[in-house]
Amino acid sequence: MSQYRVLIDTNDEKGLVYKVSTVFFNFNLNILSNSEFVDKENNKFFMRSVVDGDVNLEELNDALVDILPKNTSVEVIAPKKKNIIIMATKEMHALGDILIRHEAGELEANILAVISNYDKLESLVSKFGIPYVTISHENLERAEHETKIMESIDSHKEVDYVVLAKYMRILTPRFVEAYEDKIINIHHSFLPAFIGANPYKQAYDRGVKIIGATSHFVNNNLDEGPIIAQEVIHVDHAYGWKDMQRKGKDVEKIVLSRALKLALEDRIFVYANKTVIF
Amino acid sequence: MSQYRVLIDTNDEKGLVYKVSTVFFNFNLNILSNSEFVDKENNKFFMRSVVDGDVNLEELNDALVDILPKNTSVEVIAPKKKNIIIMATKEMHALGDILIRHEAGELEANILAVISNYDKLESLVSKFGIPYVTISHENLERAEHETKIMESIDSHKEVDYVVLAKYMRILTPRFVEAYEDKIINIHHSFLPAFIGANPYKQAYDRGVKIIGATSHFVNNNLDEGPIIAQEVIHVDHAYGWKDMQRKGKDVEKIVLSRALKLALEDRIFVYANKTVIF
Amino acid sequence: MSQYRVLIDTNDEKGLVYKVSTVFFNFNLNILSNSEFVDKENNKFFMRSVVDGDVNLEELNDALVDILPKNTSVEVIAPKKKNIIIMATKEMHALGDILIRHEAGELEANILAVISNYDKLESLVSKFGIPYVTISHENLERAEHETKIMESIDSHKEVDYVVLAKYMRILTPRFVEAYEDKIINIHHSFLPAFIGANPYKQAYDRGVKIIGATSHFVNNNLDEGPIIAQEVIHVDHAYGWKDMQRKGKDVEKIVLSRALKLALEDRIFVYANKTVIF
Amino acid sequence: MSQYRVLIDTNDEKGLVYKVSTVFFNFNLNILSNSEFVDKENNKFFMRSVVDGDVNLEELNDALVDILPKNTSVEVIAPKKKNIIIMATKEMHALGDILIRHEAGELEANILAVISNYDKLESLVSKFGIPYVTISHENLERAEHETKIMESIDSHKEVDYVVLAKYMRILTPRFVEAYEDKIINIHHSFLPAFIGANPYKQAYDRGVKIIGATSHFVNNNLDEGPIIAQEVIHVDHAYGWKDMQRKGKDVEKIVLSRALKLALEDRIFVYANKTVIF
Repeated sequence: MSQYRVLIDTNDEKGLVYKVSTVFFNFNLNILSNSEFVDKENNKFFMRSVVDGDVNLEELNDALVDILPKNTSVEVIAPKKKNIIIMATKEMHALGDILIRHEAGELEANILAVISNYDKLESLVSKFGIPYVTISHENLERAEHETKIMESIDSHKEVDYVVLAKYMRILTPRFVEAYEDKIINIHHSFLPAFIGANPYKQAYDRGVKIIGATSHFVNNNLDEGPIIAQEVIHVDHAYGWKDMQRKGKDVEKIVLSRALKLALEDRIFVYANKTVIF
Repeated sequence: MSQYRVLIDTNDEKGLVYKVSTVFFNFNLNILSNSEFVDKENNKFFMRSVVDGDVNLEELNDALVDILPKNTSVEVIAPKKKNIIIMATKEMHALGDILIRHEAGELEANILAVISNYDKLESLVSKFGIPYVTISHENLERAEHETKIMESIDSHKEVDYVVLAKYMRILTPRFVEAYEDKIINIHHSFLPAFIGANPYKQAYDRGVKIIGATSHFVNNNLDEGPIIAQEVIHVDHAYGWKDMQRKGKDVEKIVLSRALKLALEDRIFVYANKTVIF
Repeated sequence: MSQYRVLIDTNDEKGLVYKVSTVFFNFNLNILSNSEFVDKENNKFFMRSVVDGDVNLEELNDALVDILPKNTSVEVIAPKKKNIIIMATKEMHALGDILIRHEAGELEANILAVISNYDKLESLVSKFGIPYVTISHENLERAEHETKIMESIDSHKEVDYVVLAKYMRILTPRFVEAYEDKIINIHHSFLPAFIGANPYKQAYDRGVKIIGATSHFVNNNLDEGPIIAQEVIHVDHAYGWKDMQRKGKDVEKIVLSRALKLALEDRIFVYANKTVIF
Repeated sequence: MSQYRVLIDTNDEKGLVYKVSTVFFNFNLNILSNSEFVDKENNKFFMRSVVDGDVNLEELNDALVDILPKNTSVEVIAPKKKNIIIMATKEMHALGDILIRHEAGELEANILAVISNYDKLESLVSKFGIPYVTISHENLERAEHETKIMESIDSHKEVDYVVLAKYMRILTPRFVEAYEDKIINIHHSFLPAFIGANPYKQAYDRGVKIIGATSHFVNNNLDEGPIIAQEVIHVDHAYGWKDMQRKGKDVEKIVLSRALKLALEDRIFVYANKTVIF
């Protein structure tokens, strides 16, 4: 007896839950948890079920596809560790938080490698026996630099997610498209406020009383991809922007790790530049 | 076409979602939202569905009872305003918050009356055209006092909830049992810390860095009933206990109103001295 | 023996605390609380002291001005109720929260009047015996409409603050300049995100996981004045923009009331389009 | 020119700020920040100043002692790294968070050693080149076990703080007294709720809607020492106690690291079983 995750993304119509639960019943599956969401405005239906039973994955998948509307996306997943690549620049906190969680066995993930444009984090990463690849951007055109990174990523057979743990360079459309819906970023502001460079400096200049962090999938518009998780903390007039930056690290790392965990547990649907999270 | 809320509380077994959704399908109902929870430890299953259609409530109820395990509790509810009585003592903030929400049409409720052991709040309540009943406890045994209150409550035909908006007297078992699972209280601490009298003083003496409020159904053990909602705010060494009391009012009123809203929208199941909230 | 608030806003230089505390000592004043802030970047010094003693306000003021750098702003204030005008449109929650706090004696304020461009809130406001002035904007040029409002405001001898409790029309520079640093607004987003109309709709479209509210002084750039207080709450994919709007009301009213309280207690300094809050 | 921290703990009386700032002025010191707190109830005065200048520490200390009331505690501190020992058992998250912060240079601390009653964390700690001492409690009386730990601690010349990063054994009075006001613990509940063993299980059984963590100095009453920092997160009915435990780790590690940072920066005064934190 095993557990499976069933993800369904389809157009809404009457009877969907009935149809899905009929299939589960016929396959003699026990539903451990069930989450559904109907977006009336866009006529969309999303469902994530965790079921328990003895089943052929493909047969279950086919039975669901058969009974559901055309163009339905169905995934039946036997939970296993996903393969991730982490990209970073010089800061240690977000990367370190993931490394410790990985070491503690908290993450359903294999970290295949950490790629950075500096060698500053190599000492930390190599402690954990994880390959560290320095690909300096110096003296390279942006396209050349990204090609090298993409070659490094693509040297691995299967990469489920590319996690930007404070990778401080903007990615080009070519890169983003190559890993569509697979790149998870942490931006150090409560988006959509303070897009772009140095959000803490922007926040300081604006005199805000909260600062925050946003984890999102990356698309071709800077800091405008589907948001996965957001959190804020309070600041006051006594915070200079470097104090904000220091204090913000805690919220950055927590939010990125939370988003990564949601992705690894197959809890995120993406549509209409938004996320549905179960 | 109308909306109905369907509440199911039963023992867990395989196929429950299938059975319920089959009934919905047969009655040609559209599911607007569905929430389920399985408590493996206690082998319990809870479900709240909002459905849309044209249906005879009793027939739908019977069809669900027929197909579900024995001892299942099924409720099919056509949303309508519930009748509530508010009890208060001298403080204005929690009562005032409910009065304003009621006036703004935010609550699915008719306020039948406000009962208090003082006349201090009469001026406020009567502004809103709501009956105010002063039942002083002075010179009365506790049982006599409560009898008078119960008579006042019971003079109304149907009372769905009794809301204690900072009613500062302890209720006896006779009172509590008369309105089982119908009395919603706000306690001014994050329970189970600081049970009983003057929780802010207790909090100050302990030197805590957070204070809070807890809304719960009342049972016969003081401040030990099923918790509906809780919230905290930060304090520091500069807060004396009266400052805590002042600042705590905001969280008290928000938490009580949130709990009341959940109750009015039939979102709360109570079991094992806990709540399931959809 | 009385309490006074002393507010000092000056350029930073060595010995300021020494000089101020020397004056307090010479006037035989007891310091109940003292807050200071030095902004190194802008070379500014702010201080708010609460002192206890028997003193001539003007003499104390003069002694401080004498000893402090040129161009220092000194205010010595004997706490008393400030006069406020509330402006609103149709929504009840933020206005209602202030009315209840006022009724409960929580605010150091006299509410002189509520001015609205609709008569919808008259029933609520008049319950509290507070003058309600409807000044419809229909069939009026913006300038004419504002002139009428300004005349209504200026018919009162002394107005300390104009509180915009969800007043939904944009104010012109003429109006803003007439009440500089006196207009407190609540904007229903975590600024600087979602400036302008319908921020909940904007937030929904962007797919954010938090919504918020910002209280700020009004200046001539829409939603860009000095921020006093901000707060957020979490939302998820199941929130349509009207759900956000409904849930957002709680945070709007709390944040506006918090900002108003800070202003009434003379806790806010404004400079460089920011606030220092003690 | 250097920065110094000046900590003053004394009985309140008129003129204290005047006296202290006079000394600073005479020593030609610039005040970078100043925090004061007067506890009227206990007639106590606390002050923490950061000053900038060229000064002999002992002379400054003596000048302050001379001018202040008898029994005043004065500390003049030139900031430097403090020496800490971490004690842990088997969990990685709180320890790991400190190790990463230490590696990133965020902490004003040297980690002299990690002491554990198991060898489970040795692999992690030794990656960072920090001595790991396993002192098993098996087959030992509690007193014997603690003697061994104390010997290990005392083998270091100077230990400023002993940090219990989820050290899961109760300490005896002898141990606690040996390191009075030096032992910082993280307890995995919002104290005073859920004192003692397995607070998440207690929280689950009580049906709370929030869980939390509390960092405090350890004294001889279990989980009753002066609280330094507290934080909570929301949970719902779907959380079993192991889910609470998993989710609680994030708040545990953030709260412990926050408390440690406050201690390292000399921001904590302890009195009356409470903390004053600047």
